[in-house]
Amino acid sequence: MTTSPFDHPFLSGLLGDEETKSYFSAKADIRAMLDFEAALARAEAIHGVISHDAARHIGNVCATFEPDILQLRTATARDGVVVADLVKQLRSAVGTPFSECVHLGATSQDVIDTSLMIRLKAVAFLFANRLSHVAGRLDKLDAEHGKNGLMGRTRMQAAIPITVSDRLRAWRAPLDGYRDRLTELRFALQFGGAAGTLDKLRDGAVAVRASLAQELGLSDMPQWQNQRGAIADFANLLSLISGSLGKFGQDIALLAQAVDEIELSGGGGSSAMAHKQNPVAAEALVALARFNATQLSGMHQSLVHEQERSGAAWTLEWLILPQMVMATAASLRLAIELAGNMKRIGPANHNH
Amino acid sequence: MTTSPFDHPFLSGLLGDEETKSYFSAKADIRAMLDFEAALARAEAIHGVISHDAARHIGNVCATFEPDILQLRTATARDGVVVADLVKQLRSAVGTPFSECVHLGATSQDVIDTSLMIRLKAVAFLFANRLSHVAGRLDKLDAEHGKNGLMGRTRMQAAIPITVSDRLRAWRAPLDGYRDRLTELRFALQFGGAAGTLDKLRDGAVAVRASLAQELGLSDMPQWQNQRGAIADFANLLSLISGSLGKFGQDIALLAQAVDEIELSGGGGSSAMAHKQNPVAAEALVALARFNATQLSGMHQSLVHEQERSGAAWTLEWLILPQMVMATAASLRLAIELAGNMKRIGPANHNH
Amino acid sequence: MTTSPFDHPFLSGLLGDEETKSYFSAKADIRAMLDFEAALARAEAIHGVISHDAARHIGNVCATFEPDILQLRTATARDGVVVADLVKQLRSAVGTPFSECVHLGATSQDVIDTSLMIRLKAVAFLFANRLSHVAGRLDKLDAEHGKNGLMGRTRMQAAIPITVSDRLRAWRAPLDGYRDRLTELRFALQFGGAAGTLDKLRDGAVAVRASLAQELGLSDMPQWQNQRGAIADFANLLSLISGSLGKFGQDIALLAQAVDEIELSGGGGSSAMAHKQNPVAAEALVALARFNATQLSGMHQSLVHEQERSGAAWTLEWLILPQMVMATAASLRLAIELAGNMKRIGPANHNH
Amino acid sequence: MTTSPFDHPFLSGLLGDEETKSYFSAKADIRAMLDFEAALARAEAIHGVISHDAARHIGNVCATFEPDILQLRTATARDGVVVADLVKQLRSAVGTPFSECVHLGATSQDVIDTSLMIRLKAVAFLFANRLSHVAGRLDKLDAEHGKNGLMGRTRMQAAIPITVSDRLRAWRAPLDGYRDRLTELRFALQFGGAAGTLDKLRDGAVAVRASLAQELGLSDMPQWQNQRGAIADFANLLSLISGSLGKFGQDIALLAQAVDEIELSGGGGSSAMAHKQNPVAAEALVALARFNATQLSGMHQSLVHEQERSGAAWTLEWLILPQMVMATAASLRLAIELAGNMKRIGPANHNH
Repeated sequence: MTTSPFDHPFLSGLLGDEETKSYFSAKADIRAMLDFEAALARAEAIHGVISHDAARHIGNVCATFEPDILQLRTATARDGVVVADLVKQLRSAVGTPFSECVHLGATSQDVIDTSLMIRLKAVAFLFANRLSHVAGRLDKLDAEHGKNGLMGRTRMQAAIPITVSDRLRAWRAPLDGYRDRLTELRFALQFGGAAGTLDKLRDGAVAVRASLAQELGLSDMPQWQNQRGAIADFANLLSLISGSLGKFGQDIALLAQAVDEIELSGGGGSSAMAHKQNPVAAEALVALARFNATQLSGMHQSLVHEQERSGAAWTLEWLILPQMVMATAASLRLAIELAGNMKRIGPANHNH
Repeated sequence: MTTSPFDHPFLSGLLGDEETKSYFSAKADIRAMLDFEAALARAEAIHGVISHDAARHIGNVCATFEPDILQLRTATARDGVVVADLVKQLRSAVGTPFSECVHLGATSQDVIDTSLMIRLKAVAFLFANRLSHVAGRLDKLDAEHGKNGLMGRTRMQAAIPITVSDRLRAWRAPLDGYRDRLTELRFALQFGGAAGTLDKLRDGAVAVRASLAQELGLSDMPQWQNQRGAIADFANLLSLISGSLGKFGQDIALLAQAVDEIELSGGGGSSAMAHKQNPVAAEALVALARFNATQLSGMHQSLVHEQERSGAAWTLEWLILPQMVMATAASLRLAIELAGNMKRIGPANHNH
Repeated sequence: MTTSPFDHPFLSGLLGDEETKSYFSAKADIRAMLDFEAALARAEAIHGVISHDAARHIGNVCATFEPDILQLRTATARDGVVVADLVKQLRSAVGTPFSECVHLGATSQDVIDTSLMIRLKAVAFLFANRLSHVAGRLDKLDAEHGKNGLMGRTRMQAAIPITVSDRLRAWRAPLDGYRDRLTELRFALQFGGAAGTLDKLRDGAVAVRASLAQELGLSDMPQWQNQRGAIADFANLLSLISGSLGKFGQDIALLAQAVDEIELSGGGGSSAMAHKQNPVAAEALVALARFNATQLSGMHQSLVHEQERSGAAWTLEWLILPQMVMATAASLRLAIELAGNMKRIGPANHNH
Repeated sequence: MTTSPFDHPFLSGLLGDEETKSYFSAKADIRAMLDFEAALARAEAIHGVISHDAARHIGNVCATFEPDILQLRTATARDGVVVADLVKQLRSAVGTPFSECVHLGATSQDVIDTSLMIRLKAVAFLFANRLSHVAGRLDKLDAEHGKNGLMGRTRMQAAIPITVSDRLRAWRAPLDGYRDRLTELRFALQFGGAAGTLDKLRDGAVAVRASLAQELGLSDMPQWQNQRGAIADFANLLSLISGSLGKFGQDIALLAQAVDEIELSGGGGSSAMAHKQNPVAAEALVALARFNATQLSGMHQSLVHEQERSGAAWTLEWLILPQMVMATAASLRLAIELAGNMKRIGPANHNH
């Protein structure tokens, strides 16, 4: 039923990632948006914008609220964003006298961008862990096969002998830096109101924003709704990761071509040739690297974000970023798998 | 559950397209792949490669066969393609004595690429129709409002007065050419066997290929498995369509900014500002144009397709092309809607 | 002094193309723009818009006029286009009483886009010829080595034996289609005046346009100043060409890695390893293919061309298209060279 | 004579940048490569690899050596890189007995990549300064016009009133972060020898590398010749800068359309309409942002860098990175100019 290989009934076996996918489901998005609304109510109660009773009631409703998805779909078609209708449904569930305390001073972009940040923060943690796994497997390979000889190849030609360690180092070296960047990233609350000025909260705006950030475990900073550098920069990091893993994949595929330099388990079968062991994961790593490299361009086109809020540039992000996350997740998963499937690297006779 | 806005529970209201999506479901893909296998059996029976009984039995099984999707998923993870396992399941369903007559002389790429061609052919027909609809609506607008004056704008500045007809012509002009190209496209059978040489069919290869093409309603041409120009060229046409419609969307969004030059019905609401009528479809057209422009680059990267078959370059196509199709579908749907929602174009006072 | 490898004092040895470069010099551009102005005067004289004396005088001045380039540079910085100042200089050279007959009814975009079409038409002819040369050399290789055996390789793995002819066919097949498309392309005059409506020429507009197209050897069609599909489509064809040649290059580089399957003359030396023969042209073909695939995205972004004329989208084309032309030229030049440098393809022992 | 607008006789008035261009001339490249060779000799002398006399003589020759450019061009065509021939020419100029001490243990990629780092380090410093200039001009505008009212616009529609300060903040906010990143970047020496293992320097390799880095004012780190993350990451920063300035440009162009909200000096003229003042610099900022967003994709494709050194991926960088630098330079130059040309922002009557 699905267009994208990341969600596809059978292609997702190769290109999907169950764990990461859960963060980009509509359900996870709605959950994070409701968390925003509940936290906003709490933050506004702290600063006397609404009553503590209102905040408590809103929080209770948000905790279990399940919106009518079909109605959200129709509304998104009309409004271009889901939030107006989600808030309407939520207000109706909250009921009098507190319905007007829901979403007070906030706008669609606050909810959607913040939901994204909440989920990207979790994804970054997950990816940092996976990078450590890839690194660990490469270290293990180094310990086991590092001293094997290998023909160094430059410009697709045999150059001079190197060791397996030398080759492994090129795959391994970038990973710690990426992991550190993922763990050090600050994911910031977006909270600006209708046109970024938090006009409805007046003097209390900055204090409410700080409390809201704290409630959500995000960094507090002024609205960035029309300044998309942080989003594009995150996409860049995703593409760096998949790009470096793509280099790893390309090298494995080239090694696999010279059959005596590597031994892989778990390679793929062919419908026409039973004798083949295709380096499927290695090839997929190259495809995912080129996919993300392609997408990154679109994320940077979105930096040209008109005025206080661009429907066009923002929608373009929605079309691209979740898939870059998924591609990176698949890339990390496959790299862990591939590094674990290398039974030998270096010439066969070195192992005797 | 889905990453892509095209399949998303609520975002698909804005960015999806039910009709087109059905061609890119796993079900539709499997159906087309089984059609290939049935047609192959018939073509091989015509030329005496297998018996007519075998072909008839294979055809009957293919007509109702439902593979185990979970098993396909596991196999795709291992093999990088779905076909080896699909054929294995199909052979098992066909049973002795005809199981070995299934998929005879074919390879995974024959099945997958041909399935794609079968479905793209239908999509091209659908899109050609939609282009006619957009054109028809623009013609109607021209008849109703064409003589209205409008300020011509160059380099974002008022230039000289033009008419609404002049502006409409720029939106309308490219559409017929795109429609003609869609209807004139030849969608070709891919049939090459293990390495493109139809080695197992020997002297009968060309005749079987011609019959197979005829059975499937596709053009007959030598294998193009590692020559991806036609695929990249189709992607180019998709991006031309969404690009021209993106220009239309951008112009409408700019007209909508100058509130007295256009009146739209069906615009979108805001969660923060009840008075606004956002030109949601117009903005989405711009986003979809920039999305396809971004993706096209990846389709052209896939032209560097190694040797007889590249796992990497081919997988990259899978990650991109279906979504370009969906983006174009959404773009056409939104353009029809937007052209129908223009209640007035040109200054308000011209209509008095 | 130059940023671009295509014009670089030493990198152009690898990546430049002298013949094609001459069409994208400022000199060639100015020459074509003056040809436009002279032809416009003739066309307007034919239809009585200006006198034949005026046209004759303007034609004479245009034939030898050399504008002050430094002044053009300053004016381009100010105006965003060169034409306003070029016309001012030209009018001054034409002098009274005919100066006001220069550029009558035309606008900057008419001059710049038409100059581009004049030059692309010549380039298309040149590239069609080069495609024939590549094809001819591959045919010669086929005649000489086609029957040699070669290991067919799918997914970077040895598959089944094929012949050199089989491999050559994949490189050769797309070329004729590209050549035919280049020779069949219609390059159209752009002539629309200030806002695309030829407002100053009134009833004579269409007739003048037809004559102008005829004078310049271009197709006559209504203004396309804000409909950039034809430009994006031409860029697509360039990238198809370099993409298919990139596949050829990639395959050669992979063959060169397996030293016994190919023998190249003219390979490159290394500063560190005297024994190496690097497949330099083959690698450059891959780089140029990926370069054009990257650029194509930007050309399609330019389809979102605001209103009657977008400064932004148009300038983006200037930044990209000439380089795509140069990359394609270099790609064709290198493919001719590489196909000529293959002394043997197929295993060494087959030639004994 | 030049293809690229950045070097073009008249287009460079709009899109070029004299100061930055000097770092990407062949002359500057050769100068930096000779600095590498001189510093390498000094570093090797410090650690006893060559004699101090040799280092001194090599340094003296490098200081004034002017290679035969035409010969470099021919050699680059053959070798794919300039270094083998440059070193040959340099060795000949150094003469016996020290010629063999030149380039000892180094390879082409060491020289070319390090030359790039030396020049990018200077460019980063220059760009950081320019970012401060843009920021300073925006601060001045804020001081002068910040309290003016402005219509906040979301989704291309009037939303609620904001102040000029609010709008300026969105342009201003990202700049300091970019400047800090530019100034904090570490530019690292590339030094790996034939296949990245510094095989010829044996036990002294790491010490020589450290001294060489110190001599050149670069960071010392193990070879990164086939790990291109730092290069792609730098390209990302360039595109973030031009992207944020593109947002600024787009907003100015949209303000200029509503003639009463801004007053610009220095706008551009039209060849057809004398009354127009085109927001030329603003449009160019958008074009340059979209150009860099396009290019970034190619830089990330280069992350898939095969084995110890990829001719293809590396050449692709040469085709793209210098132009991204130039586009960013032009973007910064134009942003400074545009911010200085805003005589008023906010409605005309606010200034009374």
